[in-house]
Amino acid sequence: MTQAADHPQAQAGEMVIVKVGGSAGIDYDAVCADIAALWKAGQRLILVHGGSGETNRVAEALGHPPKFVTSPSGYTSRFTDRQTLEIFEMVYCGKVNKGIVERLQRLGVNAVGLSGLDGRIFEGRHKDSVRAVENGKVKVLRGDHTGTVEKVNTELIELLLNAGYLPVLTPPAASYEGVAINVDGDRAAAALAVALKADALLLLSNVPGLLRNFPDESSLIASIPANDVESYLEFAQDRMKKKVLGAAEAVQGGVRRVVFGDARAGLPVSAALGGAGTVVS
Amino acid sequence: MTQAADHPQAQAGEMVIVKVGGSAGIDYDAVCADIAALWKAGQRLILVHGGSGETNRVAEALGHPPKFVTSPSGYTSRFTDRQTLEIFEMVYCGKVNKGIVERLQRLGVNAVGLSGLDGRIFEGRHKDSVRAVENGKVKVLRGDHTGTVEKVNTELIELLLNAGYLPVLTPPAASYEGVAINVDGDRAAAALAVALKADALLLLSNVPGLLRNFPDESSLIASIPANDVESYLEFAQDRMKKKVLGAAEAVQGGVRRVVFGDARAGLPVSAALGGAGTVVS
Repeated sequence: MTQAADHPQAQAGEMVIVKVGGSAGIDYDAVCADIAALWKAGQRLILVHGGSGETNRVAEALGHPPKFVTSPSGYTSRFTDRQTLEIFEMVYCGKVNKGIVERLQRLGVNAVGLSGLDGRIFEGRHKDSVRAVENGKVKVLRGDHTGTVEKVNTELIELLLNAGYLPVLTPPAASYEGVAINVDGDRAAAALAVALKADALLLLSNVPGLLRNFPDESSLIASIPANDVESYLEFAQDRMKKKVLGAAEAVQGGVRRVVFGDARAGLPVSAALGGAGTVVS
Repeated sequence: MTQAADHPQAQAGEMVIVKVGGSAGIDYDAVCADIAALWKAGQRLILVHGGSGETNRVAEALGHPPKFVTSPSGYTSRFTDRQTLEIFEMVYCGKVNKGIVERLQRLGVNAVGLSGLDGRIFEGRHKDSVRAVENGKVKVLRGDHTGTVEKVNTELIELLLNAGYLPVLTPPAASYEGVAINVDGDRAAAALAVALKADALLLLSNVPGLLRNFPDESSLIASIPANDVESYLEFAQDRMKKKVLGAAEAVQGGVRRVVFGDARAGLPVSAALGGAGTVVS
């Protein structure tokens, strides 16, 4: 176990949180096969997933196209009115979550899929309004179902883990009043990693890691010092910004290692555990 | 507790399985408010739900309309190809399940929503083909994702109940190979009631109970002897047939009391516990 500090390979007994995004190109079959092999070898882990790309497709097909807003500080997020929330739940909690649970069950892993609403696994404040920049002006939009994870029900997760179940978690979260709120999956995974004192947090998406010159994949930033994560925000585009923010929150919360890895092929989880991608430590 | 035998009101400590359908007219707000009050008063219960009506609407909207087949023995069921299964999961596991969990969370009940795939709560054989009557001829249709619940993971359910969580369960189930299969919700609830040695199984839908002359609601059959349930199949139309079959399976499996009740208004669960509807005992 003394090797763990200098060799970025997780050891059996360590807890790893894997977050896999919902963008085009992500290979869920490869992710699940890798997770099943690691799980059977004794790795303790929890999977958190997204579903953004598929939510956009289903929302278009149902005649309620997605709406994204950009905050004055440059973060992009989905505007989640009630109808969007229901479509979001259909895709994240229905199609994507049960598709992953089914893949893992077929591979002999007894997975249990839950949203943050279930047992209030993810809990936070409901933000009903959002400040958005439109045509250079800041507007306030109301009727949003959004928020940030502030509390994690670690008891329920540990109950499942200790009974041999692999938790597969997804937004939405529950507000303190019990209302469903859309929360960022990367930051939810970071909050989970902090709450469980996880050894590693892997944020897997459809790029090789944080790129100095996006989208030039040869400009991969191989490592980021834990005490200086936020200064790398300038290299992050769009959705990568929340990953960098999540990484900063995780390492500030005591998680020893965060890796931005590639979920498009191969053994995405093992590769990230082995240090492929951008390692924050 | 000695009252329980002659007075059809469940007592604290007894286990009640409530199944609520997914047809038009069902008042989920009323069902959840009633369940929350009973739960807070100490009633042990589990909710199983459907989502058929909403699945039909979403399937139409997504351009993959539902297909129903009638077996040679007269049972109607959804033909569930892969695309239908994904829509089914979106509605049952996403929209309906999380909508119910959210209602219960808002009422202060720590609900946990799970499908039969999760932890293999409901398990059975995958039937890939179905015999269907079309234009008076029997045809065999392949590519079906369907089956019947044969095994229930009572350990996971009891783990949750004993930790204070109210389980909210829904199809699909898992095949023995881990594939998602569409199973009848009423019969899944009956299998659950038998496996947990439940005291009562309430099958709530959008009719007052079993009607002698459907749809004349004044022709309600108030009681059915437990040893003669199947002879009442002749009065059951369409979806009510599976409820009668589920009731027969439950009482044969040792469940003392099954009630077909009305979920359209009022206090649907308390009313059924109090004997409103058709009581099989």
